[in-house]
Amino acid sequence: MSNPEMNQQVVLSRRPQGVPLAEHFERRDVAVPAPGPGEFLVKCNYWSVDPAQRGWANSAPNYLPPVEIGAPMRSYAVGEIIESQHPDFAVGQIVSGLFGWQSHAISNGSDVSRIVTETDLPPSLALGILGLNGLTAYLGLTTGCLPTAGDTLVVSTAAGAVGSAVGQIANILGCRTVGITSSPEKMALCRDLYGFDDVISYRDGDVSTELAKVCPEGVDCYFDNTCGPISDAVMEHLNTGARITVCGTAALTDWSPIPLGPRVHRQLLVARARMQGFLINDHVERFPDALRTLSDWIRDGQLSYREDILHGADAAPDAIARLYRGENTGKLLIKLD
Amino acid sequence: MSNPEMNQQVVLSRRPQGVPLAEHFERRDVAVPAPGPGEFLVKCNYWSVDPAQRGWANSAPNYLPPVEIGAPMRSYAVGEIIESQHPDFAVGQIVSGLFGWQSHAISNGSDVSRIVTETDLPPSLALGILGLNGLTAYLGLTTGCLPTAGDTLVVSTAAGAVGSAVGQIANILGCRTVGITSSPEKMALCRDLYGFDDVISYRDGDVSTELAKVCPEGVDCYFDNTCGPISDAVMEHLNTGARITVCGTAALTDWSPIPLGPRVHRQLLVARARMQGFLINDHVERFPDALRTLSDWIRDGQLSYREDILHGADAAPDAIARLYRGENTGKLLIKLD
Repeated sequence: MSNPEMNQQVVLSRRPQGVPLAEHFERRDVAVPAPGPGEFLVKCNYWSVDPAQRGWANSAPNYLPPVEIGAPMRSYAVGEIIESQHPDFAVGQIVSGLFGWQSHAISNGSDVSRIVTETDLPPSLALGILGLNGLTAYLGLTTGCLPTAGDTLVVSTAAGAVGSAVGQIANILGCRTVGITSSPEKMALCRDLYGFDDVISYRDGDVSTELAKVCPEGVDCYFDNTCGPISDAVMEHLNTGARITVCGTAALTDWSPIPLGPRVHRQLLVARARMQGFLINDHVERFPDALRTLSDWIRDGQLSYREDILHGADAAPDAIARLYRGENTGKLLIKLD
Repeated sequence: MSNPEMNQQVVLSRRPQGVPLAEHFERRDVAVPAPGPGEFLVKCNYWSVDPAQRGWANSAPNYLPPVEIGAPMRSYAVGEIIESQHPDFAVGQIVSGLFGWQSHAISNGSDVSRIVTETDLPPSLALGILGLNGLTAYLGLTTGCLPTAGDTLVVSTAAGAVGSAVGQIANILGCRTVGITSSPEKMALCRDLYGFDDVISYRDGDVSTELAKVCPEGVDCYFDNTCGPISDAVMEHLNTGARITVCGTAALTDWSPIPLGPRVHRQLLVARARMQGFLINDHVERFPDALRTLSDWIRDGQLSYREDILHGADAAPDAIARLYRGENTGKLLIKLD
């Protein structure tokens, strides 16, 4: 049982190889800390569950240092400031940031993503469509894939938090959109809720053959969330000048040693295509504009989202593995009491 | 023996798998053709030997249709116009173009690369440092690798026609340059003639270990002429924001099926690096400016080149294989009588 008067944490207790499983975490209740000068205390309402957490939990080189054993798992979260000794943050403000899997987080502001100002919309959106997922979709698309009206865009994990936003935004920008996903339920979601023009399942038949049917004029933009055989299939259909945003590698969990796959060089050369790694942290200066655009699209009904909410801290240890098992439909969140 | 009054041709007689060998070609002497209205006749002085000819001779998809069996091998050449019924081309002009492996070519102008105007410099340069090799180096570098002063640039086939120009141009632009090549002779050439700051051989020791020594601050720009294990090693040293021009795949001769190698996605992602296929044909509008710059650098001694000249049409059938065996030092050419 959780004690709401304690700081409920989920800490990394063992170093995983690949996807972190429930056995790599421990629940722990500690005293709620008090903010010192220049600090504030956030009571978290939601924790985020993201593919990037796999990399953070592993010891392999990454763009952030590995989470220390015994520390709360690194995670985005959203919550309300309940005590503050910081001049720029006030009690009652809603903030999102890298507060970790703990119900009460002390911050000096450096781990804050932003103060949530669209208070007419649910705060959990700051972890999804109005957080890194939506921003990743919008900025990965507009800075990497450079879609123009009439382009054919393909996105993998099309029913996921990023993929579903990529498809919808590309649609708004005038692209023909093709989503790659898994189950019939996710295919229906992609068609009916997210408005993809075509959807294929990587579990049914040969992806390259299916792509040839739904992309008869080739692929101009590919937003790659998976790497692996799905991406190999998309690479066979690149149009001249195609742009590929490499955003995630969810299909391949172990990168030590680097897994083998078909070399992409000749396809890039023949199509004069471009493949670019995308990390949202590089684009912070574009966040305010992007969030205004995304919020407006949500308010006027052009941009839909779906949340898959687990309840309570005890659901967290298995949550990353659940994401990699593909069991969620929409943005996976953990709601605290 | 060749008959200078005949049109000496080297035709593709059999379809190769991978690198075309001497056995895939036949020598043939036919009557010199006469130009019709709107056409002119070029007497070729030099034929070019280029890695791209491998792809042209194969039946695999490429950016140009395969050379037909029985037709002169597709090739760049330079020569003098000796008859003309074309209003834009005059007898006595030097032209370079895709005239094929034949001593006398009829052209309507559509296969002309350019009229050679830097008549103070040798005409053979129009097939190398002032032709597609130099242009590929300059434009592949400046549009793909985007070097800035202080960057570390690595180039494979560093002693070759493109690689040696890449290194010198990057030096002129203020980069620290590292060349990857094979033999001690080529290493000396890279250091002494082309001015690379450091040179390593892919035949001595582990390329990644050697690169770590000579690129202690990582790699900002990689001009990739080889693909294969050399490129795999360079990918282990990418700096954040690195730019890779994929210009050729000389280390891997057979792309059907696509050879396997370490997947690049995670390295691109972690470094937010960019990998872009480059084909010189896409940049024709930049040629005049680039040629002016390259000519000036040759005249003032900043840009050196080396030619490896075979003599006579009979040397052509083995010439592409010779290039892939790495036996040439500098731009490989065939000089006609």
